[in-house]
Amino acid sequence: MNQSPMPVVSPATLEVVPLGGLGEFGMNMMAVSWEDTTVVIDAGVMFPDPDQLGVDLIIPDLTYLEGRRGRVKALVLTHGHEDHIGALPHVLPLVDGPVYGTAMTLALVEPKLEEHGIDANGRLEPIKPRETVAVGPFTIEFIRVTHSMPDCVALAITTPAGLIVHTGDFKIDQTPIDGEHFDLHRFAELGTRGVLALFADSTNIDRRGFTGPEIEVIDAFEELFTSTHGKLVVATFSSSIYRMQVLVDLAVQFERKVAFVGRSIVQNAEIAQRLGYLRIPAGVQIRDADVPSYASQDVLCVTTGSQGEAQAALPRIAIDDHRFVKLGPDDTVVFSARAIPGNEKAIARTMSHVARRGADVVTESMKHVHVSGHGSAEELKLVLSLVRPKYFVPIHGEYRQLAQHARVAREVTARTSRTLQVLLAQDGDVIQFDQRGARIADRAPTGRVLIDVTRTGEVGDEVLRDRRHLAGDGVVVAVVAISRQTGGLIGDPELVARGFVVGEGRGEALFDDAAGVIAECIETSSVEERTDQGLMTEKLRGELRRFFKKRSGRRPLVLPVLMEI
Amino acid sequence: MNQSPMPVVSPATLEVVPLGGLGEFGMNMMAVSWEDTTVVIDAGVMFPDPDQLGVDLIIPDLTYLEGRRGRVKALVLTHGHEDHIGALPHVLPLVDGPVYGTAMTLALVEPKLEEHGIDANGRLEPIKPRETVAVGPFTIEFIRVTHSMPDCVALAITTPAGLIVHTGDFKIDQTPIDGEHFDLHRFAELGTRGVLALFADSTNIDRRGFTGPEIEVIDAFEELFTSTHGKLVVATFSSSIYRMQVLVDLAVQFERKVAFVGRSIVQNAEIAQRLGYLRIPAGVQIRDADVPSYASQDVLCVTTGSQGEAQAALPRIAIDDHRFVKLGPDDTVVFSARAIPGNEKAIARTMSHVARRGADVVTESMKHVHVSGHGSAEELKLVLSLVRPKYFVPIHGEYRQLAQHARVAREVTARTSRTLQVLLAQDGDVIQFDQRGARIADRAPTGRVLIDVTRTGEVGDEVLRDRRHLAGDGVVVAVVAISRQTGGLIGDPELVARGFVVGEGRGEALFDDAAGVIAECIETSSVEERTDQGLMTEKLRGELRRFFKKRSGRRPLVLPVLMEI
Repeated sequence: MNQSPMPVVSPATLEVVPLGGLGEFGMNMMAVSWEDTTVVIDAGVMFPDPDQLGVDLIIPDLTYLEGRRGRVKALVLTHGHEDHIGALPHVLPLVDGPVYGTAMTLALVEPKLEEHGIDANGRLEPIKPRETVAVGPFTIEFIRVTHSMPDCVALAITTPAGLIVHTGDFKIDQTPIDGEHFDLHRFAELGTRGVLALFADSTNIDRRGFTGPEIEVIDAFEELFTSTHGKLVVATFSSSIYRMQVLVDLAVQFERKVAFVGRSIVQNAEIAQRLGYLRIPAGVQIRDADVPSYASQDVLCVTTGSQGEAQAALPRIAIDDHRFVKLGPDDTVVFSARAIPGNEKAIARTMSHVARRGADVVTESMKHVHVSGHGSAEELKLVLSLVRPKYFVPIHGEYRQLAQHARVAREVTARTSRTLQVLLAQDGDVIQFDQRGARIADRAPTGRVLIDVTRTGEVGDEVLRDRRHLAGDGVVVAVVAISRQTGGLIGDPELVARGFVVGEGRGEALFDDAAGVIAECIETSSVEERTDQGLMTEKLRGELRRFFKKRSGRRPLVLPVLMEI
Repeated sequence: MNQSPMPVVSPATLEVVPLGGLGEFGMNMMAVSWEDTTVVIDAGVMFPDPDQLGVDLIIPDLTYLEGRRGRVKALVLTHGHEDHIGALPHVLPLVDGPVYGTAMTLALVEPKLEEHGIDANGRLEPIKPRETVAVGPFTIEFIRVTHSMPDCVALAITTPAGLIVHTGDFKIDQTPIDGEHFDLHRFAELGTRGVLALFADSTNIDRRGFTGPEIEVIDAFEELFTSTHGKLVVATFSSSIYRMQVLVDLAVQFERKVAFVGRSIVQNAEIAQRLGYLRIPAGVQIRDADVPSYASQDVLCVTTGSQGEAQAALPRIAIDDHRFVKLGPDDTVVFSARAIPGNEKAIARTMSHVARRGADVVTESMKHVHVSGHGSAEELKLVLSLVRPKYFVPIHGEYRQLAQHARVAREVTARTSRTLQVLLAQDGDVIQFDQRGARIADRAPTGRVLIDVTRTGEVGDEVLRDRRHLAGDGVVVAVVAISRQTGGLIGDPELVARGFVVGEGRGEALFDDAAGVIAECIETSSVEERTDQGLMTEKLRGELRRFFKKRSGRRPLVLPVLMEI
């Protein structure tokens, strides 16, 4: 039984290993083990920094779970955000058992598995709040929490060592859009019963006070529906179903048609409608292709691209490069999302492009058009006060957020007779709970696996690779000089490669053709695109990656260096 | 008289040409001309995006001013921030006349000229608010405004075409630290007299309401002085003299010594003290070298590095790489500055390093430890209401801020009998005012000049170059694999060059030596530095640039590509 390279968990020890999300925002994943049973909580991705060239997605290193093959008996999902479910296609093959999640969460998982050609084989098990499931020695209860999308849960896991609570992502929205309240009573009951350890979201620990409910945005949007004479275009996260409901309700009230624009938002709106989480009266929704047939003042577009992502709907619309949605002087474009750190420059560029179309730009700093889905300091304290755990492990944040959450937790108990022990753990720390107490006892293999999604044709072609492979496929640098006036190509692009080997004598021809790809890509772009260095670099990178993949079967790291002359 | 390539301004036409700051934040500069007299307002730099590799500073293209050689009769500075004075060493050679500025502004200009070995030859002319100077047909009056540093002015320029007002940077601080109020009365008088055109700061047009006075931060800092048991370390902009005064006053009250840490902040504190803008009682200030001799609870450090700049004081302190300032668990580090877009990731990394030292991190979102120096929407409207110009030109912002300011200006006059004509100009637009009205009549050469400051030795060695030169010196890509565990170098670094030519046969030796430079740089760095990709990339870039400059006399664009394996 114990022939695997990794031993089973010692008898009478509960072992909790965060595999992602403790030291970064994103790729949330945690393994909970007792003897030969492991349950995995969440399986998320992280999006790379703009300077992580050639990387599309990042997932946690799966070595630890591979070492437990055959003993991973269930995967439990707290909610349907990418940073909690995005790595599922990679993690599922390591799980010998069901995937538990609420209806909305599983509905978002399904197309993801389909895209990867994975047959879940009836392993997706829908659960509801206050239900419990048994997995080996564990009993897992799901508890309703409020967040920026419907159907989110926290977990209360009864283990032989005691009860542990995992909050998932949450805020305490006391007036939720769907009427489904944060289950304060159950958290209180657990606190009364006695909780061994609490694992709680640290995302917004830096913010004072309470985050505020989702309905707070209604006032600002009401104003915008009243004052906008042309199209109203609202960019938000494609998972923000509540935001969509707010917008749809106002569209009905102000007699506008609603078009969802952008692949992921169309898909998510469809799923949410099917499950009854998004209610759109008949005759209100139109397709993006129908937008040109309506008068501007009769249309609301809800789009992707709030982060200025080069290929998403709003940034394309902003440079007048969308087939159906055009902007004019009477239109208003609302950025109804926070800026994810690292995206600020791309967002600012998108906003200026919108302004050049003559449209009005509205941001969070101007009107209250966005509210966070994560609880602020007072909400996090409230959960600590309700749950009253013996041990506390801050999760979901960079090291600083975790450290700050630890500090706040100590403040909560400072003037009480209760003792609270904080375990300030990071990814890969093996936390053991046994009769003698709890401690960080060991280190598990941990890290980040980079994923390169090169779309060569109609289906996504996804490659898992670590940094070694990334280096192994070599590097191609393309130095491209373009005219500052016209954005046109000046001279020939220069390509330099290292560690990128193709068959003898074929290199030169390949590079000549690559130069042709660059020239064509520039010629077929609008002047506005060409003179936007960020957009053009991203576009060239994509074209070159596809080209090298197709022609050489390899995936070099492609670095376009654009010089305006 | 008219033999230069550029004609003089047509008779009876006032020509205003923004050369920088209208389409970007930074490099503010504007030329105002009547016949053969040109006055330049401000001469600022812009700091590059993190992805503008190999560039340290950006200044406006000076072609337009070169075309007016001999006719540029004065340079007028509104205040001493880098985005208004940083390009002075490059602009001054094109000016045949005095540089006007307040005492503080000129004091900040002096060391800058000295560094460049420029003798101002008595051309720096100090002025005071409400004073006027005559330059050819212009009479320039200086008007007190409040901002985040002392001694800032707006300009009222009487021209043969009418009166124009340039706000510089401002907010309306009604309780200024130094008691020097925004000169509302003079703005009102000008409005009564009749203003042809207003050029006004658009930086914070997105923010609702009033920005709030500098003294608002006192409460939060009082709390921090009370609650911090160890060292208090506050990172702020080196020009934030008011912030320094607030901190010094509290240090005196709470009996802490004050150490300024970081080259630029030490220099600016010295200048401000000399001029009486920063008052530090005897015995309060200590040198950074003295910090270790005092008990932690007796020290306040005011440092540079609020933006996470790799070489600045706080980021060095955060990775335990500062000679005199160390952090421990009782210490508190305050980020008392906004994040400049693009720096968010570097700031977050610095914060996590601080948290790893065990110190508490305090940010603007947690406590009110920073307030902006730029007026919000209501303040900008107030100036529009007071000045009541005929024409309005929004300045200082990306296109979107300018467009939004234009929109707000139209709202201010919408329900009045006044007409306001907005000229939504961008860098290089030639704005003409004459008897027939005002219009954007032409385009002047405009653009950005990139500056590469390679410090080869004890003095800064600054090179002006445009993008053509940047490409002309070639590109060197260094691919470096380091161990994820130890941060140590794996294998040999690979260097690839393009367009970077050295003497026949010398290339290989040069690259071998460059690989040696990389190896040494990694070996002599701490594990914390080595595993911080951002820090290490920046450090390698600096080392390699110095190396190539010294050995080849050339300045290739250096791109280190770090791979953790």
